[in-house]
Amino acid sequence: MSDQGNKRVIGVTELALRDAHQSLMATRMALEDMEGACADLDAAGFWSVECWGGATFDACIRFLNEDPWERLRTFRRLMPNSRLQMLLRGQNLLGYRHYADDVVDAFVDRAAENGMDVFRTFDALNDVRNVERALKAVKKAGKHAQGTICYTVSPLHTVEGYVQLARDLMDLGCDSLCLKDMAALLKPQPAYDIVRGIKDALGDVPVHVHCHSTTGVTLVSLMKAIEAGADVVDTAISSLSLGPGHNPTESLVEMLEGTPYTTALDKDRLTRIKDHFAAVRPKYTQFMSAITGVETEIFDSQIPGGMISNMESQLRQQGAGDRLKDVLLEVPRVRADAGYPPLVTPSSQIVGTQAVFNVLMGKYKVLTGEFADLALGYYGKTAGEVQPDVIAAAQAQAKKDPITVRPADLIPNEFPKLRAEAEKLDGFDGTEEDVLTYAMFPGVAAGFFKTRPEGPKNVGLDPAQAEANARAAAFGANAVTTPIKYEVKVGGKTHTVQVQPA
Amino acid sequence: MSDQGNKRVIGVTELALRDAHQSLMATRMALEDMEGACADLDAAGFWSVECWGGATFDACIRFLNEDPWERLRTFRRLMPNSRLQMLLRGQNLLGYRHYADDVVDAFVDRAAENGMDVFRTFDALNDVRNVERALKAVKKAGKHAQGTICYTVSPLHTVEGYVQLARDLMDLGCDSLCLKDMAALLKPQPAYDIVRGIKDALGDVPVHVHCHSTTGVTLVSLMKAIEAGADVVDTAISSLSLGPGHNPTESLVEMLEGTPYTTALDKDRLTRIKDHFAAVRPKYTQFMSAITGVETEIFDSQIPGGMISNMESQLRQQGAGDRLKDVLLEVPRVRADAGYPPLVTPSSQIVGTQAVFNVLMGKYKVLTGEFADLALGYYGKTAGEVQPDVIAAAQAQAKKDPITVRPADLIPNEFPKLRAEAEKLDGFDGTEEDVLTYAMFPGVAAGFFKTRPEGPKNVGLDPAQAEANARAAAFGANAVTTPIKYEVKVGGKTHTVQVQPA
Repeated sequence: MSDQGNKRVIGVTELALRDAHQSLMATRMALEDMEGACADLDAAGFWSVECWGGATFDACIRFLNEDPWERLRTFRRLMPNSRLQMLLRGQNLLGYRHYADDVVDAFVDRAAENGMDVFRTFDALNDVRNVERALKAVKKAGKHAQGTICYTVSPLHTVEGYVQLARDLMDLGCDSLCLKDMAALLKPQPAYDIVRGIKDALGDVPVHVHCHSTTGVTLVSLMKAIEAGADVVDTAISSLSLGPGHNPTESLVEMLEGTPYTTALDKDRLTRIKDHFAAVRPKYTQFMSAITGVETEIFDSQIPGGMISNMESQLRQQGAGDRLKDVLLEVPRVRADAGYPPLVTPSSQIVGTQAVFNVLMGKYKVLTGEFADLALGYYGKTAGEVQPDVIAAAQAQAKKDPITVRPADLIPNEFPKLRAEAEKLDGFDGTEEDVLTYAMFPGVAAGFFKTRPEGPKNVGLDPAQAEANARAAAFGANAVTTPIKYEVKVGGKTHTVQVQPA
Repeated sequence: MSDQGNKRVIGVTELALRDAHQSLMATRMALEDMEGACADLDAAGFWSVECWGGATFDACIRFLNEDPWERLRTFRRLMPNSRLQMLLRGQNLLGYRHYADDVVDAFVDRAAENGMDVFRTFDALNDVRNVERALKAVKKAGKHAQGTICYTVSPLHTVEGYVQLARDLMDLGCDSLCLKDMAALLKPQPAYDIVRGIKDALGDVPVHVHCHSTTGVTLVSLMKAIEAGADVVDTAISSLSLGPGHNPTESLVEMLEGTPYTTALDKDRLTRIKDHFAAVRPKYTQFMSAITGVETEIFDSQIPGGMISNMESQLRQQGAGDRLKDVLLEVPRVRADAGYPPLVTPSSQIVGTQAVFNVLMGKYKVLTGEFADLALGYYGKTAGEVQPDVIAAAQAQAKKDPITVRPADLIPNEFPKLRAEAEKLDGFDGTEEDVLTYAMFPGVAAGFFKTRPEGPKNVGLDPAQAEANARAAAFGANAVTTPIKYEVKVGGKTHTVQVQPA
């Protein structure tokens, strides 16, 4: 450590086991393809290893027939020296609705008990009321409570506003803060200004910075955040990095050489982790994001790439594929009318679908139930005011009144009821963990409990299949310039058949 | 321009027409696929458009049956408002040997006359004697003479050394300097230190910075270089960026927002340029580099990726594929013995091949002719001393004495002789340009002069073919998991045939 004597050591959170494969391969990586990397991950010197939460819980039971709680226990066993980290959607936990406080308490308690250390807790609208209960539960469990600032860009979002949000989160007793840039919108100067602003206002509260790499600028943003005092940054090992994913861990290490900053990472371990996931990656080719390069349009449109493809498919289904341009112009208006929510799950889908409705059926003539709920405060408070005529339309269509209380204040405790429902399901094992699995994904859980004993399913492709796949792709490519001849046996007779794409 | 009032405007050199496709698609892009972007390139506000030199001259006559001089004249006509820029290999011009001074003079004169404005002139060994004549010829032609520092890393290469090199180049009358990082080795701190060092030592000499993106850190290096005072940086439009190429132009623009720096680039034009090359790129899929992500091993090994694959193939040809690890350990030793040349064409090939020879046949038992020449000074002077026993071995095997003079001092004027030889070739058109084409690639030129009237050949694939290609690849990939059924007519009878790769 002698050469680190006068350098500030920057902590690193490795994302390979959670957000990296969530962003690059539709969250499909199975536990069996992660286990081999755990010893190196555990010893490489990371501040934490993000490995659970986000969409992984859903993907486990929906696609992989894998028990997410067992996955967590396995990580705990294989990485005894590491801080395990998860992404928690505040009052939504890992599901898609608001839960009663008793469910939030139970979930955090079980996650902590099964091995989770660091709970990065966020709300899509940056409404601190939606993270308060979860953060308190984390503190009660004696674990690390991280408050989250979802970064977005709008006329209402300022450095001062983010600093105030940081203050509000720290007032809830957070151990650290995360500046979370899920859309790769955080440019170097705002990264510097926000981190510096927080440090100036709140003293030495630990600040973590999480950036995606879609726009190509965010490794520079991490550099500037570090210069401004950031303590920990998030990266993904190079073989699971870039595109809609994250900046490469190895590039971060090298970037800091010669600067007043360093990481404590073991480069040989990083190489082994890289090699592990480079070997695993081809199994998941079928799930890989089509985006591999850089997309900077989002800076102007404010519309994430994934959201555009969703809207395109909605329009095509309505036979209105030619209206995309109108919809793209409508999205920022709808977002403004709704008080400038960050465009992130679920608000991106809610705003996008309403923009499609507005273009096809007239402005706010028909509201989706979700948009009405957003307008009426049932997701929480947005940064700006919702337009009065939008509130009126929502109220009329949804036949609900607007609320100003915390949405979960309207939800009575529900854990006993959820347990009673879960107990009726085949394969339910009686644990609180199973109740929580059911609570978050009632429909999917019913099937999962039944098939759970059969073990993991649909785990990418095995390497031999992947190789055959690559061979077949090359073979298909050749077919264009050179038609392929097959010897085909039909009814005992051999024919030569020439095939080429029509 | 009002918001640029108190900001420093950073110039940008766009690389799409030269180094981008040289790095990403083996220099194969044909003029016809560039012409459509020229109006936007001309109006986007670039400091210069790099469009000629490097390997493009060779690729034009070797693969594309395209006259490189005509390409230059076309660019001049289509981009009347732009500085056109080329990469010139000093006394090697665009070929692979040292030329007599009269050929250097003639080449620069013709390039200037045909429309070239900015001559970025480098020597692979950073021996200023090898660029002096070319730079003087550029000044004589009234054009922009840019001296180049090839960046490398070794125990002998220091910030002070690079500053001294900058001083030596400016003493030759350069209009500007380029810090050229062809292997993506330039980390942010050295980028800052070298640019700052040059500015401190030499005042406001314009400094350009050229980085590849292979290691993933160099957009940060450009940021630091700009903070240190760099005047112009090189980037490539996003659809021809990243991997072994360069940082995306659009990302650079966005990166600077909110900082004290800005570019003068027109974002709408950039989008059009991006769309143009995004549409063109699939035509060249067959030539695309296999590297798309980030490779950071080069920081430790000092061995560029392309060089490793070369050595692997040499070893396999010798039935010694298992010796690669020994060769990788030998390369840095050979490089040290040769006085630490930068590992760039041609020195990377020369050092790599000698390392293979050392491993297979014993240390310096057999020297390649090129390595002997390098050791004896026939390529110029390296930063360090060549080991005496290596010089002795080279002298014994090559039966030549070491030299300390400028290599070209030993080459008598040769233009008249080259003209006489060229005049014997079918299709030679009598111009000085044709003499120069012959001078640089005598073997290839002979064939090219003959086929020139037939016009461009082998221009990637047409878009319909490319689309069919993509469809076929998808079809091949599907074939693995789902066998494909064809309705096949054989002898008038329809059969259903199921096909899947064996």
